[in-house]
Amino acid sequence: MTIRLIGFGNSICTLRVILCIKELGLSYKLTPHAGGYAALKDKDYLANEHPFGKVPVLYDDDFKITESRAICRYLVSKHQSKHNDTILIPDDVHQAGLVEQQISYGSSYYSPSVEKIVMQEVYEKVKGKTPDPVVINQGQVLNVYDKFLEGKEYLNGKFSLADLILCPITHYAHIANHSDLWDKKPNVKKWWDRLKNRDAWKKNFGSC
Amino acid sequence: MTIRLIGFGNSICTLRVILCIKELGLSYKLTPHAGGYAALKDKDYLANEHPFGKVPVLYDDDFKITESRAICRYLVSKHQSKHNDTILIPDDVHQAGLVEQQISYGSSYYSPSVEKIVMQEVYEKVKGKTPDPVVINQGQVLNVYDKFLEGKEYLNGKFSLADLILCPITHYAHIANHSDLWDKKPNVKKWWDRLKNRDAWKKNFGSC
Repeated sequence: MTIRLIGFGNSICTLRVILCIKELGLSYKLTPHAGGYAALKDKDYLANEHPFGKVPVLYDDDFKITESRAICRYLVSKHQSKHNDTILIPDDVHQAGLVEQQISYGSSYYSPSVEKIVMQEVYEKVKGKTPDPVVINQGQVLNVYDKFLEGKEYLNGKFSLADLILCPITHYAHIANHSDLWDKKPNVKKWWDRLKNRDAWKKNFGSC
Repeated sequence: MTIRLIGFGNSICTLRVILCIKELGLSYKLTPHAGGYAALKDKDYLANEHPFGKVPVLYDDDFKITESRAICRYLVSKHQSKHNDTILIPDDVHQAGLVEQQISYGSSYYSPSVEKIVMQEVYEKVKGKTPDPVVINQGQVLNVYDKFLEGKEYLNGKFSLADLILCPITHYAHIANHSDLWDKKPNVKKWWDRLKNRDAWKKNFGSC
């Protein structure tokens, strides 16, 4: 079995898939697309790799799949429990449902809010603008997450794909100097401490 | 088994779940939240039903789950093949992966584009404004979908959750007088004709 990934080492969605591969105990080869992000809209890439010009694209031998969350679900269905004991989506139908619920909260509320903070910090500061407090206020989503995490180590109690999916964007928020938003929420702070100290993250991305 | 749904009969996400329930051959009881959409941000609703103030919320006996796509995946895992032959997510790991890929294309590209068309048409026309051609141009996502559907009846060949999820927003685009965008794309037009003529849609929403 050979997993080949087209993507970029600084792409949130690519990092999400690499983290999933690592958590499942798999190996992979990353092939950045020649020409960088701009070339993702080239006719050939759109026709052969991703119809909307995105990364990552995963090849598992000759099976191709795109879209980071879909790729993670596929990797879990095919490879979970085969190389280690990490469970990203539980077998129990109710527990799996609640993981999917948290994945959706992540896509719909956490990620869009945190992306606004990161994008504004990274791009606006480069352009010499002052960060917009309305955007930084997007961090209020963390109040809800602090409640989710009351008395729990991870969003669904045990570590799952719902936590994993949020690691790259949370990491970027921290390196964009917004760790204070997380540090102010005790449960969220402890959750991120746990996540970034997991082997799969620490050994591969801890220094990036 | 009693399925109770908190939602609204005109909500895209509620309709998505109802359609899934119908396709799986299940029954349900819809309980609109007293006070309407505005009351979804009430403290009690946020604390007890949905932490971000959304619908639908599904109770399957005493198990509660929110977020329409998560609810659909849960219903499929628990109930698929028990009441009829409809397969929304195939057992085959590769086919299931490709359904998840299409669900993600739907969430990331089709739905946001079509929602912009519908929202602008519904709200802007009510306010007496002329539809913005830039927004209507969002319909170009249908070019990609027309290619997806070349030589296929449904997005993944056979009907799946990926098609089902797009029905409510596609329906709203049509009743907002934008059927021309779909009619211009022959494969997309035939796909929508197939979807709206499926029993689960036709018998329940055909006249809405």
